[in-house]
Amino acid sequence: MTLPAAPPRQLISARYLLPTWRQQDCIEDGAVLVYGDTIEAIGSRSDLHRRHPDLPELHEPHGLIMPGLVNTHTHAPMSCFRGLADDLPLMTWLQDHIFPVEARLDRETVRLAAELSIAEMIKSGTTSFCDMYLFADQVAQAADATGMRCWFGEVLYDFDSPCYGALENGLRLTGDLIEQYRDHSLITATVNPHSIYTCAPELLERCGELAADTVSLLVIHLAETQFEVQTCRERYGLTPTRHLDRLGLLGERTLAAHCVWLDDGDIELLSKRGVSVAHCVESNLKLASGVAPIPRLLDHGVTVALGTDGSASNNDVDLFAEMSSVAKVHKGVNLDPTVMSAETTLRAATLGGAEALGAGQLIGTLAPGKQADLIVLDLDQPHLTPLYNIPSHLVYAARGADVIHSLIAGRLVMKQRQLQTIDEAAIIAAMQALGDRVQAIRNTVRTSC
Amino acid sequence: MTLPAAPPRQLISARYLLPTWRQQDCIEDGAVLVYGDTIEAIGSRSDLHRRHPDLPELHEPHGLIMPGLVNTHTHAPMSCFRGLADDLPLMTWLQDHIFPVEARLDRETVRLAAELSIAEMIKSGTTSFCDMYLFADQVAQAADATGMRCWFGEVLYDFDSPCYGALENGLRLTGDLIEQYRDHSLITATVNPHSIYTCAPELLERCGELAADTVSLLVIHLAETQFEVQTCRERYGLTPTRHLDRLGLLGERTLAAHCVWLDDGDIELLSKRGVSVAHCVESNLKLASGVAPIPRLLDHGVTVALGTDGSASNNDVDLFAEMSSVAKVHKGVNLDPTVMSAETTLRAATLGGAEALGAGQLIGTLAPGKQADLIVLDLDQPHLTPLYNIPSHLVYAARGADVIHSLIAGRLVMKQRQLQTIDEAAIIAAMQALGDRVQAIRNTVRTSC
Ligand SMILES: [Zn+2]
Ligand SMILES: [Zn+2]
Repeated sequence: MTLPAAPPRQLISARYLLPTWRQQDCIEDGAVLVYGDTIEAIGSRSDLHRRHPDLPELHEPHGLIMPGLVNTHTHAPMSCFRGLADDLPLMTWLQDHIFPVEARLDRETVRLAAELSIAEMIKSGTTSFCDMYLFADQVAQAADATGMRCWFGEVLYDFDSPCYGALENGLRLTGDLIEQYRDHSLITATVNPHSIYTCAPELLERCGELAADTVSLLVIHLAETQFEVQTCRERYGLTPTRHLDRLGLLGERTLAAHCVWLDDGDIELLSKRGVSVAHCVESNLKLASGVAPIPRLLDHGVTVALGTDGSASNNDVDLFAEMSSVAKVHKGVNLDPTVMSAETTLRAATLGGAEALGAGQLIGTLAPGKQADLIVLDLDQPHLTPLYNIPSHLVYAARGADVIHSLIAGRLVMKQRQLQTIDEAAIIAAMQALGDRVQAIRNTVRTSC
Repeated sequence: MTLPAAPPRQLISARYLLPTWRQQDCIEDGAVLVYGDTIEAIGSRSDLHRRHPDLPELHEPHGLIMPGLVNTHTHAPMSCFRGLADDLPLMTWLQDHIFPVEARLDRETVRLAAELSIAEMIKSGTTSFCDMYLFADQVAQAADATGMRCWFGEVLYDFDSPCYGALENGLRLTGDLIEQYRDHSLITATVNPHSIYTCAPELLERCGELAADTVSLLVIHLAETQFEVQTCRERYGLTPTRHLDRLGLLGERTLAAHCVWLDDGDIELLSKRGVSVAHCVESNLKLASGVAPIPRLLDHGVTVALGTDGSASNNDVDLFAEMSSVAKVHKGVNLDPTVMSAETTLRAATLGGAEALGAGQLIGTLAPGKQADLIVLDLDQPHLTPLYNIPSHLVYAARGADVIHSLIAGRLVMKQRQLQTIDEAAIIAAMQALGDRVQAIRNTVRTSC
């Protein structure tokens, strides 16, 4: 499918414009002037009309314009395993259900499943995602073909990969992908050691060097489970966080996913090194990993972003649902209703995500000079009525399905809930067929056990 | 608006029929034969076609038919305060924000706001709700006018009520409502003492007697906060649960909302007396009350149902979102991924709710002789693809917005997401105007403080 070009200049306008995460910044009858892929101006609709008459305009009288959401931790191709197995201990789930089918993954499956996740992300308000998986070039190609903004990396670990074979090839592949995508306007390759329990210290060090040499983001799972902390202490005499620090991997271009089990020293270290955290509350709950100390990380000035993790452990990539969970869960487990306010949560899902990806100047709020990544919600619905406070509605009441239009880099990727760059019926049909094949593989695997 | 009559006999059919909460009961290409308000048969579509040719049929080739969800704890009219104030300590929220505006409530506001919540409930798959509020007859009238199945009660407490004035009138009103609705097919009045901290022992005893004399459901908030337990212990030397038991209020027709803070003896007592629990996990999290010991209650054989609580503390009445939270949160806080499986959670939202309301023979599953309360979801969507296990999808991936049709007592109340018994545009407009008035009252109250 050829991507439709963005008109050179256009107005997007609606009843409300929320350019940031703050209620006080809300503009009634607001508009965004988009020039190519960039925001040229924001302001009142009548003002922008007067200064720029006769521009094409997408106007939503009952709408709200806001920054597109940023999902900083995904395994997009895992949509093909959504609901395959649930409610199981982590190791049973991984070893008996996920690994056997993952071992048979191929490029085509990864491409299809990534495209399905992109469709789902766009339909629920996400305009950027940061992905770690096998055959990661297929994720990048799916993003490229659909006009999605994407950070991606080939997952690296000590054992051989169905994608690149021996580890040496994986490091080379990562370097090649970084070069290949260096000038791409929407897609960035990253360095992705899987975790401290699947990567030996030498591999971690080499990843750190590669990220430093290429000025790339380094993404890693960190301190996800108590088990990880315990085995790391036994093996290396250090917490996972301190272990990574000793290997030189903690810095301002490090994005650590999960960070559930941190002690005070770990939190101070993450803060001091400028590491960002991708908080995946629903995945951590569903896999029974625990609840990350996000209010304390924020108190220490750590940049907190949100992630859904893969659809096999969530089971969706919907950041509106994630925001609702984040804002509620920390109140409940800390017995403090003032933590993770709607605004704090919305910031994590927008500018926090942008900053975690080193793109705080590029996306995450709507401001002149920034990329035109924005979404429009339809507020004219029972569950969004009445309206007293917009961040409250976005975090506690809105749903992904309330997003009706989406622009990425000025390009309309969804209009009236119709995807513009993805053949939704075709991808659903292909993935249903793929699901039948996965089920068949699974039956074979189980019979042979 | 006059309610459309249900055709005397009709078939509802879809790709899948899940008559219970169990994957093993799923029927591919299934159908439900509805006669008036009742289910006459369920089975394979081709079978029912053969036996009953030429019936009117609502067929959804990509659909799933399942029981309508049962919301066992709501304050439906609180939709008018949705997002009015969030992220505040409970007492600040109640005393500075909710009570001042509640004191000015009138019948018309309650009626409008209840109708808005009913619209939202139908649009997110709920077909029955159990409500406690002021001017409760207006909730019943809203349910009656919209064809919704409803249990309701006028909230009773020691102080005067804006609705009935002195307490004596409230008890009389409750008795009158029970008589008035005794023969209504969809609406049942209940006895609703608010809580042990707002009702003196004498009031609680009188409520218990009224419920016993009229064979009515008694609904009460119980053990919601640590503060409630502490003050109850100080005042009466007992936990709230034991206090209620001593007053004779715990029995098989008692529905206790929240039950967050229970000790082992409380749990055994609830089990022994046959009390049902309305679990409101999102409200308990958002208000920082804590997380109820639901897995332990289930282990003790207690009937657990789900509730959203009011929209001011959730901020919605969407049971699909609630199911996702319930299934995830208990795993996370218990560090056990096997608790609250998808099927267990789905049971709580359907048959568990029916049983809690004393209506397990009437609703909660789809079976011959039961009421035709059912919903149809559109499965043909990215976030529901592929499909390996239906309860998993319903709990972890589906959204209220995936519900396209809804029948209550055989009557189509939503078709293709269009409400059939509610003028959605009118209620939204009226509630937006009401929101402006609430905001104005609030500004007055705050200025005068
Ligand atoms: Zn992950
Ligand atoms: Zn309540």
